Order: sequence, then C-alpha cells, then structure tokens
Amino acid sequence: MSNRVKIAVDAMSGENSPKKIIDGIDISINSNQENFFLLYGKKDILVKELKRKSSISEFCQIIDTKDIIKDEESPLNAAKKGKDSSMWKAIESLKENKSDISLSAGNTGALLLMSRLLLNTIDGISKPALAGLWPSSRDMSIVLDLGANIECNEKNLTDFSSMGSALYKSLFDTERPKIALLNIGSEEHKGNDVIKKTFSILKDKNLNNLEFCGYIEPNHIMDGNVDVIVTDGFTGNIALKTAEGTANFIMKNLKKSLNKFSILLSYKNLKKFKEKLDPRKYNGAIFLGLERPVVKSHGSTDAIGFAHSINLCNKIVKGNLIEKIKSNLINID
Amino acid sequence: MSNRVKIAVDAMSGENSPKKIIDGIDISINSNQENFFLLYGKKDILVKELKRKSSISEFCQIIDTKDIIKDEESPLNAAKKGKDSSMWKAIESLKENKSDISLSAGNTGALLLMSRLLLNTIDGISKPALAGLWPSSRDMSIVLDLGANIECNEKNLTDFSSMGSALYKSLFDTERPKIALLNIGSEEHKGNDVIKKTFSILKDKNLNNLEFCGYIEPNHIMDGNVDVIVTDGFTGNIALKTAEGTANFIMKNLKKSLNKFSILLSYKNLKKFKEKLDPRKYNGAIFLGLERPVVKSHGSTDAIGFAHSINLCNKIVKGNLIEKIKSNLINID
Repeated sequence: MSNRVKIAVDAMSGENSPKKIIDGIDISINSNQENFFLLYGKKDILVKELKRKSSISEFCQIIDTKDIIKDEESPLNAAKKGKDSSMWKAIESLKENKSDISLSAGNTGALLLMSRLLLNTIDGISKPALAGLWPSSRDMSIVLDLGANIECNEKNLTDFSSMGSALYKSLFDTERPKIALLNIGSEEHKGNDVIKKTFSILKDKNLNNLEFCGYIEPNHIMDGNVDVIVTDGFTGNIALKTAEGTANFIMKNLKKSLNKFSILLSYKNLKKFKEKLDPRKYNGAIFLGLERPVVKSHGSTDAIGFAHSINLCNKIVKGNLIEKIKSNLINID
Repeated sequence: MSNRVKIAVDAMSGENSPKKIIDGIDISINSNQENFFLLYGKKDILVKELKRKSSISEFCQIIDTKDIIKDEESPLNAAKKGKDSSMWKAIESLKENKSDISLSAGNTGALLLMSRLLLNTIDGISKPALAGLWPSSRDMSIVLDLGANIECNEKNLTDFSSMGSALYKSLFDTERPKIALLNIGSEEHKGNDVIKKTFSILKDKNLNNLEFCGYIEPNHIMDGNVDVIVTDGFTGNIALKTAEGTANFIMKNLKKSLNKFSILLSYKNLKKFKEKLDPRKYNGAIFLGLERPVVKSHGSTDAIGFAHSINLCNKIVKGNLIEKIKSNLINID
C-alpha cells in the first residue's frame, strides 16, 4: 500500500453520492490498481455501499465524518460550521500527510475556501488558481484560472503561467509547454493593462521551461496549437460556461435533427465524435498553488466522469506536480 | 425614393467586395424594395459590377471615393489618412443627412473610431457599444457590448441596458424586454464591483421600459429566457469568440462523422438545424449610442450574410432606434 497514490475522497458530496463515488472507484480500479482511497463520509452508508463492490474493499479505508456540505451553502458558512464534514476532513488529511491528493465533487466555493484555510500557498505564489482540461483538435489543453480569482494582476497571471506549465508537464510528456494569454485580439497592443503587462513579462523573460506564444483569441482555444491558456478567473469562467452552453445547445438541436437510421448508418463515427466531446473525459478541475493538490470533480458527473477525475489525481501525484510548480516559478522582481 | 430607407454602404470593404455587396443588395431587393443604397467606392469598379445586375440600378447611386481602408490598418492610421475612403464617406453621409444608416463589412476598429469622430454621442450616453444578435432556443437575443469598450463602469453598463432594450424594441415587437447582466454566478453577491453596482441600479429603478432579470450565466445565454444580455466589451468579446470557436469545432467534427446516407436520411431536419445556426442569419453588429446608427457586417460573410445585414439596417431605421434610445435613457444621478 505504501507505494500507492493515496487519494482522500470526499465521498458524500455531489449528485448521487456516495453511490457514484464507489462506482467510479470500481471503474478506475479495473484499469489501474495504483491508487488507495481514503473515503471520508458517513461510515454506515459507506460500509453498505462498499458491500455492493466487495472487490474494491482492499483499496479503500473508511473514515467516519459527521457532516455533509450542501451545494447551496455559502462558502463562508460551510468553512465556519463544516469542520466535521467529509469535505473538510478530506482536505485536512493532506495537511496531516495522510494522503497525497484530495478529491471532491461538492460545493466549489466551499472547497476552495477550505483548501486555502487548511493548506499553505507555495512560496512565491500569490494566489492559487483553478485549472481545467479543454478539448482541442490535437488532444486537450489546460485553461486557468476558471473562477478562483475574479480580479488578477500581472503577478497572478505570471504565476498562473508557471503553474499551468507545471501542470501540463505533469500530465503530458512535454519539456516546454506552449503558453498563451487569452485576449480579444492577437496584436501586442490589444487588451487591458494587466494582460499587456503580463505579455511584457513573459516575452522579456524568454523562459526555458515554457514557450510563450503571445495572445490567443477564444475562437482558437480548440485549435490545439497552444498547450496552456492563461486568463483571470472571471474571464476564464465566462469562457468555460459559454463553451458549455454553446455545446449543449448544438448537441440538443442535433439530437432532434437526426433520425434513428441516420444515427445507425454513421454509428461508429458518431460514437467517436461523442466520445471526443464527452465532458466526463475532461472531468476534474485542479486547484493549483497550494502546498498540496486538490481536485474538484463536477457535481453532476456520473461514475465514469468520477473515474476520470481519479485518473487525473493519479497522474498529478505521479507527475510530481508540486515539485514541478516549485521549480517552474517565475520571479518578476 | 423619398420614403425609402437610405442605406450608405461602404462598398469596398470586406472579403470579395464589392462583388458580394452588389450580390447582397440584389438578394435583399428580391424580397424588399423599401431600401435605397448609396454606394461609396471606386466608381469604375462599381459601374462594372452594377452592369451584372441591371435590375438593381434604380435602387442604387454610386458616390466615387478614392481610398479603401485595409483590414490590417490600425484604427488611428485609418482615421488620420482615410478621409477620402469609402468607409469615412459612408459614415459622413449620416452627418450630412444624406442617409439614414451606414453599413460596412470593413475594419471594425477603424469603423468604430471614424463613427465616433464623425458623429456625436446621444445626450446622456457616455460610451457607445457594439450589439449583436445571438441565436437562442426561442429565436434570438441581443448581447452587448461585444468589444467597443474594454473597461466599463456601472454608468456604461446601465446605458448598455437602456440601449439594448431600445434595440430589442426596434427589432422585435416587445414593450418591455427582459434584460440580464452577464456574470459568473446567479446570486446577488457574485461578480466584480461594477456588475454588483449595476445590479443595484437596475433593481432599484424598477423601470417601466425594461424588465430586469438579474444575472445570467453564459451557459444560459441560448436558453431564450432573456431578450438582452449586458456586459462590458472585453467579456462580451470573449463570450462571442468562445461561442464561435466551440460551434466551429463541433460542426467541423460533426461533418466528418456523418456519411452521405446519414445526411440524406435526415436531410430536412439537418437543413433546419444548419439554418438555425447559420452565422449569416445573425450577421450585423450595431454600433449603438451615436446620434445615427452604424452597422458592421462580418468581413468574411458572403452575399447572403450581407443581405441579412441590409435587412437589419432596414428594421433599425423603420423601428426608430435612435428615438427609442432617447426615450429609454436611465438617469442614475
């Protein structure tokens, strides 16, 4: 067990939990036995759930916790009153060195606040950021910040660039990821002051551990020419939700437009197409910049989506994310 | 001719102009003979183009201009050197009361700057904004600002709300359009300071000429529950380009996934689906807040797209947009 990646799972949060959590663990174990799961939640419920999947018991340990953080709870209230919750205890296990990474499908605001309260920021990083995987023509890119910081300065965006690059290196086998700043134009004079200042910093530094590609406009995020796309949390969240809304709108209308025979005749290719865009494949936002990694699964994902976020946790730990962030820091003084 | 809507067309800008401009006018005249076109551009070229479509000559007048503003020209250079250009002269015709509305498929930055230099802002409006049509489940909504103003305060966003509402009233038959502010959450405490202050203003005013619906998240823009979506120009441009990029990515991959037989078997419905999302249908961004209306067609659209922007110009003038903006103003003092 000692060599296994120890994942502290908030087993009570998110839709259909803990059922989908246990099913997700089961799916992940079928292809990868490298992980060990610390399950934080109500013991009686979890024992019952684990009985359904007896083969995974040896990969799991249950830690009894009293409370569950609700999705509608304000982050501040959750952090104040939730110290006996499955979410709090799972993050606390990182601080106590009982686990390598923490995973929750619960209330995002509460998770971010609790993580910041319990864990120190990495020396040199001013604000942690939420990073996510984004489908692209080549494979997938990383976009950050997706919503942790509404207002950012050039120091923050520079930190996001180094952290995003470290994350990309941990997940994919690349020495010098291509980084671009999200902007409304590609010319150097476009954008607001903070973006222009960050552009200057990244251009002047000419860094060894990332290749700065200038600005990227949002209509080119999915072209696959850039590995990491950096923006403030407000803009990143707007882009993420616009993409979600547009994709949902098109897929809903498309479904209505294709009859059974059409689907049957192109079944194989349509399946590939659906798989490429399946949001479960990209499930898991990574909270970067704290001394230990915390991953947020989508609350409404299913067991397959949750299994993807487990796989992501495994890659992050095995890819030595935190060490890579530390050695990737950009000093702007 | 006196009762016709007089559209001053920059006939030289945009891809494949003036051919697509003349073809677009031809298409528009087939269904609507209410417009008269003042064509600004190189006379010899336009005379030759018009010969191809002799039936539209009676709807057009050519005004010879020397220069053409290039797409790559900086707005400042274009405005300095371009006073003999088709773009400048077309906008100037508004100032001189020779036309009712101006339409160009050229350089957006140059068009916005020239419009601001030549035309006064409507009394009470601090900054003009660029508004566009956005497809939705119901029909279409209006989103503004799409990129004219990178930084906005609460006065600007309040102005955009009243102008967007006036535009919606001009284009669609609605007394009290539903307005929402684009934000990263729907709760009142979410977002940056400017958004929160605008929320307070619009909520407290309880206006007769618009229904304030609070915040809208970008994944709900296309739900069709709101008529006008208000945001600053940076965020609006990010959302617009993210939606474009996502739609292009999906449509490209979908095309690859459907074989001929699948397409044939669902032909009618797929055609409807394609039409619903056809960007040409939504072609034409409206520059709002100046004493006269200016419309920007997409540079790369074709004749059908250009015809749609002509139709939009007609509706704007017949819908008395400028009068509606004046009577819709929100006083925040």
